[in-house]
Amino acid sequence: MTKKSSFVICAVGIVAAVSASVVADDNTDRALLERAQQLFKPLPADAGTAEYPVTPERVALGRALFFEPRVSTDGVISCAKCHLPGLYGTDALPRSVGNSGKIIPRNAPTVFNTALQFVQHYGGNRQNVEEQAVKATISPLAYGNADYAAFEAKLRAITAYRPLFEKAFPGEAEPMTIENWGKAIGAYERVLLTPAPFDRFLQGDTSVLSQQAKHGLDKFIAVGCVGCHSGVTVGGQMYQKFGVTQDYWIATGSKEIELFKGRDKGRFQDTKNDADAFIFKVQQLRNVAVTPPYFHDGSVADLHDAVRIMGKLQLGRDLGTDEVNDIVAFLESLTGEVPQQFASVPSLPPAGYRGQ
Amino acid sequence: MTKKSSFVICAVGIVAAVSASVVADDNTDRALLERAQQLFKPLPADAGTAEYPVTPERVALGRALFFEPRVSTDGVISCAKCHLPGLYGTDALPRSVGNSGKIIPRNAPTVFNTALQFVQHYGGNRQNVEEQAVKATISPLAYGNADYAAFEAKLRAITAYRPLFEKAFPGEAEPMTIENWGKAIGAYERVLLTPAPFDRFLQGDTSVLSQQAKHGLDKFIAVGCVGCHSGVTVGGQMYQKFGVTQDYWIATGSKEIELFKGRDKGRFQDTKNDADAFIFKVQQLRNVAVTPPYFHDGSVADLHDAVRIMGKLQLGRDLGTDEVNDIVAFLESLTGEVPQQFASVPSLPPAGYRGQ
Repeated sequence: MTKKSSFVICAVGIVAAVSASVVADDNTDRALLERAQQLFKPLPADAGTAEYPVTPERVALGRALFFEPRVSTDGVISCAKCHLPGLYGTDALPRSVGNSGKIIPRNAPTVFNTALQFVQHYGGNRQNVEEQAVKATISPLAYGNADYAAFEAKLRAITAYRPLFEKAFPGEAEPMTIENWGKAIGAYERVLLTPAPFDRFLQGDTSVLSQQAKHGLDKFIAVGCVGCHSGVTVGGQMYQKFGVTQDYWIATGSKEIELFKGRDKGRFQDTKNDADAFIFKVQQLRNVAVTPPYFHDGSVADLHDAVRIMGKLQLGRDLGTDEVNDIVAFLESLTGEVPQQFASVPSLPPAGYRGQ
Repeated sequence: MTKKSSFVICAVGIVAAVSASVVADDNTDRALLERAQQLFKPLPADAGTAEYPVTPERVALGRALFFEPRVSTDGVISCAKCHLPGLYGTDALPRSVGNSGKIIPRNAPTVFNTALQFVQHYGGNRQNVEEQAVKATISPLAYGNADYAAFEAKLRAITAYRPLFEKAFPGEAEPMTIENWGKAIGAYERVLLTPAPFDRFLQGDTSVLSQQAKHGLDKFIAVGCVGCHSGVTVGGQMYQKFGVTQDYWIATGSKEIELFKGRDKGRFQDTKNDADAFIFKVQQLRNVAVTPPYFHDGSVADLHDAVRIMGKLQLGRDLGTDEVNDIVAFLESLTGEVPQQFASVPSLPPAGYRGQ
């Protein structure tokens, strides 16, 4: 046997060993992928429906209105006031600052992918993004208008919006209405989706996730996070009690809320039904790694702490440091691309001016 | 003579008449252009200087910092809070809302082209955009920090900014300083220039302005507006008394300002020198048509009214409706393109999170 042929045999042996390992990894990855595909779904192209279509005209109008502060009573509040383009559609505050400096009792969630949740708001008191946009205009904490007529008067005063409303809602005698405000902003929010590495994984490309992220996904499923955080938005599809094993504020350090005259009781604040005490919408987890602080009152700043607290409060588990780090690595794979519609801001028509 | 040749002669006659009119218009346009070129200058490519260079690294960092609210005491104030991308770098309010809802005594001017003015602020108490950005961080009305050390501590807490500072200010032992905050934001503002139709006119293309705009420019020069509103920013290059023929508030309806315990006296508020009473920096007029309301306190909503008031207060002239409309048509030619650097907003690094 020559030196050369022994080298070849040796090389073949190495290739065979590597191949066996690749096959084993492939089998593991394939099994994880198949489990994940049963629990989650990749993002659709948009969140439009037959009732709420995302026509280009509605999206263009809604995009402008999203950034429009001149229809609020303090001239400062717009959707973008608490959902900033630079901060992944949040304001990075524990609790947002609303009309005339009033502190809003809850944290501003990201607007990305929110249209895909089963209801809106932490307490689920808005059925969809359209209803959210409509009712915000008369909330004393938000746009602050006395009623819809007062809001519509402010909107119609910016006359350059009229042709945009006419295009978005053709054939309507008066298209500049509160309903169409909601539909236009809703259409815009229905395209604010952020495809992430996890979507590519769900579509079959298992190489997208790091080994640590795959371990994290496996752990996320195995310990039971997925019992609530599932579906296309990895959460946002059901209600759940916050604080199953103990009162949540023991772990989160949450303060009493003046408006609620005590701790935030979730859906109970709206329904006054004892069965709803401490029931919140399960939060969606898309972009969670880039949207601190966490929980309905932004009481926890660090994602690792948030994961640890959830394990304890909801599942009665003391997750170890490695488990937490792995789960965080998986959650990082939910960070998507900021949609161009949001990263760039349209110029709004000037008002108080008779020119174009 | 055949019918055909008589048609030719007739056609030649028309062409000659049209040509004579074109020549006359050309001569008028040429004369107007030459006068304008002596009074105004087109925008440069950027407003960088040897002392304040606009390196790509500084601009990229400054662009992020411009939108960064987490270095203010209320977590809301950023440069972009009062200089909104959607509103041509203004907030469309008469007077801005500052830290924790405090009302700022003056109107937020556009950030576009501001670096080219001879000083900053209505009273000229900031030498350049860098000094403005630095001192804003400790203004109780703006970022609200107790001192620069407190500000720097907030800045350094967002650790993901460190590599950006290191790239923008190479070789410095500690680049995350208040001085470099000013230089980075300054570099960004020095590229926020908005080339307008009037620039193309000044470069020789007289066809860019409408006949009415040309009449307006002619009037703007003839009645004396140009005595103060000249140079590259059509103003912003000198101080002047506001209210030469009568107290300004009689025309503008300006209210007393609580902070000043009376009417705003311009530079006097800073210098306490009687000679500075009612002296303001002459406002630049680039983008004036799209940045209502007008004057240092936003007391006038409509540009036509603002022009009429200036004619009366500064020049003792009662401008007619046609004159006002023509001047407004000229001012509209100062509306430039929103720079892409400003129309799109960078994603800011998440804080309170140990990941990337």
